[in-house]
This record gives sequence, structure tokens and C-alpha cells, in this order.
Amino acid sequence: MSDLPIVNIGICGLGTVGQGVWKHLTRSRATLEARLGARLRLKKASVRSLTKKRGVRVAPTKLTTDPMAVATDPSIQIVCELIGGTTVAKDVTIAALRLGKTVVSANKALVCGHGPEIFAEARKHGGHYFFEASVAGGIPIIKALREGLVANRFDRIYGILNGTCNYILTRMEREGLAYPVILQEAKALGYAEADEALDVEGWDTAHKASIIAYLAHGSWVPTKAMNVEGITQLTQTDILYARANDLAIKLLAVIERDLATDELSVIVAPILISRNKVIANVNEVYNGVSVTGDVVGETVYIGRGAGQDATSSAVISDIVDAAALLLRGNAALPEPVEHHCPRRPPERSFGSYYIRLDVRDEPGVLAKISAATAKFGVSIASVQQSASARANAATLMLTTHETNEKAIRSAVAQLRRLAGVLGEPLLLRIASFGE
Amino acid sequence: MSDLPIVNIGICGLGTVGQGVWKHLTRSRATLEARLGARLRLKKASVRSLTKKRGVRVAPTKLTTDPMAVATDPSIQIVCELIGGTTVAKDVTIAALRLGKTVVSANKALVCGHGPEIFAEARKHGGHYFFEASVAGGIPIIKALREGLVANRFDRIYGILNGTCNYILTRMEREGLAYPVILQEAKALGYAEADEALDVEGWDTAHKASIIAYLAHGSWVPTKAMNVEGITQLTQTDILYARANDLAIKLLAVIERDLATDELSVIVAPILISRNKVIANVNEVYNGVSVTGDVVGETVYIGRGAGQDATSSAVISDIVDAAALLLRGNAALPEPVEHHCPRRPPERSFGSYYIRLDVRDEPGVLAKISAATAKFGVSIASVQQSASARANAATLMLTTHETNEKAIRSAVAQLRRLAGVLGEPLLLRIASFGE
Repeated sequence: MSDLPIVNIGICGLGTVGQGVWKHLTRSRATLEARLGARLRLKKASVRSLTKKRGVRVAPTKLTTDPMAVATDPSIQIVCELIGGTTVAKDVTIAALRLGKTVVSANKALVCGHGPEIFAEARKHGGHYFFEASVAGGIPIIKALREGLVANRFDRIYGILNGTCNYILTRMEREGLAYPVILQEAKALGYAEADEALDVEGWDTAHKASIIAYLAHGSWVPTKAMNVEGITQLTQTDILYARANDLAIKLLAVIERDLATDELSVIVAPILISRNKVIANVNEVYNGVSVTGDVVGETVYIGRGAGQDATSSAVISDIVDAAALLLRGNAALPEPVEHHCPRRPPERSFGSYYIRLDVRDEPGVLAKISAATAKFGVSIASVQQSASARANAATLMLTTHETNEKAIRSAVAQLRRLAGVLGEPLLLRIASFGE
Repeated sequence: MSDLPIVNIGICGLGTVGQGVWKHLTRSRATLEARLGARLRLKKASVRSLTKKRGVRVAPTKLTTDPMAVATDPSIQIVCELIGGTTVAKDVTIAALRLGKTVVSANKALVCGHGPEIFAEARKHGGHYFFEASVAGGIPIIKALREGLVANRFDRIYGILNGTCNYILTRMEREGLAYPVILQEAKALGYAEADEALDVEGWDTAHKASIIAYLAHGSWVPTKAMNVEGITQLTQTDILYARANDLAIKLLAVIERDLATDELSVIVAPILISRNKVIANVNEVYNGVSVTGDVVGETVYIGRGAGQDATSSAVISDIVDAAALLLRGNAALPEPVEHHCPRRPPERSFGSYYIRLDVRDEPGVLAKISAATAKFGVSIASVQQSASARANAATLMLTTHETNEKAIRSAVAQLRRLAGVLGEPLLLRIASFGE
């Protein structure tokens, strides 16, 4: 092996994922080296504390508290940025790319927030930026979109991209417990962060949706230009309604492009989806993505979306791709062609909807509701009623016939103001993917 | 665009898939060229008849009846072998590779039967051999195994790899009709070949299983060294039994490697699998593959396994990969390291089984059966009975407690000889994947 070329790897951030990469790369190194015809050396890693105990053994001489020292070490060709966030992580990434190095990242917030700038630096200095681990953990969905499905234009991509939300929704459904109860348990078990907002309010999913939209369509959709809704308003009433109607509620990213008008729509929201769909049956911490291409038809990808091991699997695959490229001259890769798609306006987003609202338990309420929605052209398809936690009130679960997003929003705004409607109505989309 | 490098592509075999590749490549060419920074030219195609009408328009000057003229044309860098079979297809492939060209293929029989020889020619002459379309149609499963999941060792890979069989089994289950009836309809609809043996007897699945085993383990398992069983013996009795017990019957390839002993097992057989598993719910012409890696855990891939469009999607993705490689010097790619795994002997293949057999309808038969299987250490877990088509007979459906493949085979051979057992018993495995 002594004549083989050497590829030196540095890791910025030896936290959960960093340690996983170190561990699994050490374990699989001989195989990967034989595959590559080169030696892989874990050269240096940055940590916050030199004295903290870790799950992997790393020689103290390889550790530093300065991530920039890893990123700029002249002997290191591949820098793994596993710090997270968009401050130090960004500085380290840009510094490494400016030195012509290749950066491997699991950082969806950074790709989503600064993708164009980062990609430009990589191009300009002859390095690469890989981020397979940033979306759907161990599932090679980025490779599928960039390479495997390159012959396709994508009408619709939708999926579950956040394991924490899927875990909470799965447990709410299986155990019949309220959202806050399951959330507390998920935190205690380490399945939800102490500050859960990024996950449960949909922003983590939105970051990933933005990355998918760019890879599939060459168009950057910032998260603030998306409709992003989380799972915090869901109750057992909604879960039971779904189950009784052979539906599941999943927090989905839905990325649709009208191939005729070129309009692009990206939303993140809890959506009612038929149990006949594979994605409706992806449970617990698993992620699942359905990708429909105009040539291949529908393809589906399922796997663990997060966690040390699944993320490490994706980071290591990027490291191997990066090493293979380096060994053969590090030339540029085919890239999505940047292309600005206009945003699909709400009046051209069609679908049917579920509205759950509490009403005063008195005659004539339903007539008033129906009249209020009819003003916006929204007609009620079904009504079910259940007990409300409020006194002298009932909970109504309505579904609508097909309408559009503009009309339904106006209708719900109207309902909110209606005498007899108590509290805040909940609006959910009902997916009609391919049916 | 005039300064851009040009990549010339030839197609050997302008049949269903060849025409799909021509059509979709023509349609998506501008996008792919922008991605690659190069021009893609469909230079020449070989056909059996110059006068036959085709679904795509190809200038007559680009057509030839001689596939070798395409394979050896000095201007052509990428040759798509879409002839099928292992005679002319092999000659054309070897000829192109010997000229240092890259060959893209959808030919599972050729990869399975002559992989090592073909790969050696590609390596020797500096070309490449790509075959994404040979397994699971449009699903980029080969890329996932070669690249996306490279950090993993694979304990178990299983899946549905033949759309024809899955279509037949789905219709048998949904419509309650007998295998021969559905087969005839599938032929009439073009979902099954006139000579269906390759599909329904499991050999097509076996070819694909062999390719997967090589990619995952570096070990070539010829189909004749596998246990290969088809779906022709399945009846509505089996289908109904499955449904009543929340199982599905799927023709599966199962590739297992014991990471401790290194033993490899590859089988193709109709298997009873819990409906809780995603793969059990992959229906009609869809393929689905579950890949469990020691780092990533379980990942699942679903999509159309065959047909003009799905196969074209995979062929075009290989063409783009091949073109990108050519444009940056065509250096060697990381490859699975060849490694001979010993075959797992039947006595170390554990599982429980389903046996369906007709017996003379008289007292004491079950006791005799139970005694016969007990001799081999196989104990019966459950017995159900249904009406037999035979006079004075009943059909028994037995399941066993966990035993091993050697014991169950001996037990069934014994049952076959037992007075009171009529006709041929059917033996099916009951999957216990990850439960």
C-alpha cells in the first residue's frame, strides 16, 4: 500500500455526527482504500473541549480547538464541516473552498441559506462542495436527484424530511396521546432537541425542501418565500379523523412544478394523505421521499433521516466521492443549471381541504359556516362532529370539494370572524397525489 | 455552444428501450448539455430492419443494420448496448471496450453471465461499463450500492426485481383468479413475454440478484449456484392463506451475508412477508428493494422496474455519467473489491416455513405428517385446512416453528413419499426480516 496516493481528511466539529464519521471511517477504511486505490487519513479534528470524554478514541495530537486550523491545514484536502449553524460553519467552509479544498457537509441550514455563494466559491477555486447528509440522512436522495434521475423533469417531489416530527406524529397516532405529552417524552429520549421549534414548526423540513427544489429545478426558493406550517396545532381529533377516513397526517414538504407554465410551488405542512400511499406508511424516525419524473414515473426512497449512523453513512459516501474525484484531477461535475421558476400563485394551487373548528353548540351554525365559505366559492363536501373540550361547544370537521388555496384562505379568515366560531380554526390540505 | 466539446453516442438495438433512449435524450438534450458543458450527439443506431416503422424519427443516414459498425465507429465514444441476449450483445460490448469506449447497458443476463470478463476489458483498455438499467429499471439502485451506501457492509438486501411476476401476483390477489388465467391476460396486455419462463421461473430475478450480490459484496454468485424458485406453483389457496394471516406473497431475491462468518446466501423464491413491511405493499409492475447496511440501517427504493421509459431514464443517467467522466479524462472509478464469500450452507439458513399439501381425507393423516417432520426436528406451529380440488381429499396449510433449510427440505422430501399425501407439496419460506 505504500506507493498509493494519500488523501488527508479533516473534521470540523467532533460532535455526534463527527464522532460517527470518525468511527465508521476507521472501521471501513481498509475496504474503502482498496476501492479507491488510495490511502485515507483522518488527519485532524476540531473540538470545543480537548478534555471532554468521547465515544471514539482520537490521538490527542490530532485534536485542536480551532476549526479554522483544520479548514486551512495545507495537508488536508477534504474538510468535513460538521459544526452546524451558519456562522463559524460558514467561515470554515468558505476558507477551505478558497484554498481549493473540497468540503463535505451535513449542514442544511447553511446550504439553504448560502448555497449560491458557497457553490460559487467551490467553482471559482476548483474544489467541490458535497452535502448528501443534509437531506434525508442516510438515503442517497441528493445523488438520485443530481445523477440517477438526470433524464427527468420533476412534476412532483414530496416527502417526510424530519424524523422528529414523524416520530411525534407516529406516537400520537399509535398511543392516542396529546402533542405536548409526546413532545416531552421525545425530548427525554433525545429524539427532539431541547429547543424543538426548528423541527416542529417546519423550518428544518423547509431547509431541506429548498435544497431539493434547487437540485431538481435549479431554482432557489428561500424558506421565507414558502408556506411553512408545523405540527404544533394538531390534536387527537385530527389524528382520529384521519384514521377513520383511511388517511394519515404527515408533515410533508411538497415541491411541485407545472411543466407547462414552469411555475414552482414549495410548501411545508401537515397534510392528510391516503394510506394507500407508501409515504403515509413511513413511520417513527424514518424519512421517505416520493420523486415523480416525467420519464421514470414515481420512485420512492425510505430510510433513517437523522442520527449519528445514518448521517455518517452519507458523509462517508461524500468523502469517498470527493477522494475519487481528487485522485483523477478534481475536474468539475455536472451541475443543475440555475433557472428561475416563477412561484405558483395561490389561486392556481388546487386541492381539497380539511377544516377543524370549535363552534357554539346551537342550531344554525352549520348553515352560517356553509354560507360563509360559499361566498368564496368553497363548498363543503362532508361534515363530522365530535365532542369539544370547550363548554357548550362542538368540534366540527369539515372537508371541502376541490377549490384553490386563495379561496380557502379567504374562507377560513371569514370563519375566524364568524359569531359562533370559537378559537382558531385549523386548516389542513388533503393530498391527491396521483389519484 | 460551438466551442463546447462533443460527445458522440451510438445505440446498438433500436427496439423498445433504444427508441425510448433516443426520444428522451433528444427531448432533454439541451438541459443535459448545459449541465455537462458539452454537446451530446446521437450519431448512429443499429436496427434489424431499415424499413420498419418506428415511434421515433431517426434520419435514415444514421441507421445501419450492423451493430458492430456502431460499436467500432471511431467517432463514437459511448456505445449503448440495448440488443439483449448474450451473443451479439457480448461481441459488440467487447469490441467497443477493446477500443477504449464506454459501454452503457441494460442487459442483466450479460452482466450476470460475463461480468468479470467485461469489467476486465473495460479496465484494461481505459473505458467503462455502466449497467444501472439492468436492475430495477428506473430506480438508481446500482448507484446507491456503488456510491451512496459505500460506507456500509450489507447484512441483508431483499426485494422485488421482476415487474411481470409482481403484476401477476398482484392481480391474483386482487381478483382471485388462477395463475394461468392471469398469465394469459398479462401476455395479451404485453406485461409478460410470449415465452414467460425467464420471468415466472425466477431466472430474470436471479440475474439481477447476482448483480446486486456482486456490487454489495464483490462476490460473483452464478445463478446456477442459487436456489431459484418461480411463481408457477402458487394457487389461490396460498394467496388466501397469506391474506388471512396479514401476509403477502412476493417473488423476492434475498441476499444475506453473515458479517461474522462471511457466509453469503442468495435465493430467489416466492416468500410470505408481513404486510407491515413496505416491500409487501409494492404492487403491480413496481419493483422495490430493501437494503440494510451496518451503518445506515434499512433503506428502501421503489419504482417501475421495466418498460421503455423507466429503463430509458436509467440508461440516460449512465450516458450522462459516462460523458462527464470522458470530459474529465475518463479515469478509473472506485470499484467493488472482488472477494469470494463462502456460500451459506442450508443447515445454517434458519427460518419458518409454510407447507401446502393435499392429503387423503381420513383420520390420522395429520399425526403421520407431524411424526414425519418431527424426525427431522421440524415441528408444526399451525394447521389450517381447506377444500381440495381432488376427490376425497383436503388441502392442509401447515406452518413450522423455526428450523433450517436442510431439515425442512428433508422433511418435505419425506412428506412426498408418505402414504396419504397426494401430489406435490408446496414449500414457501416465511420472511422474518427484522422482526
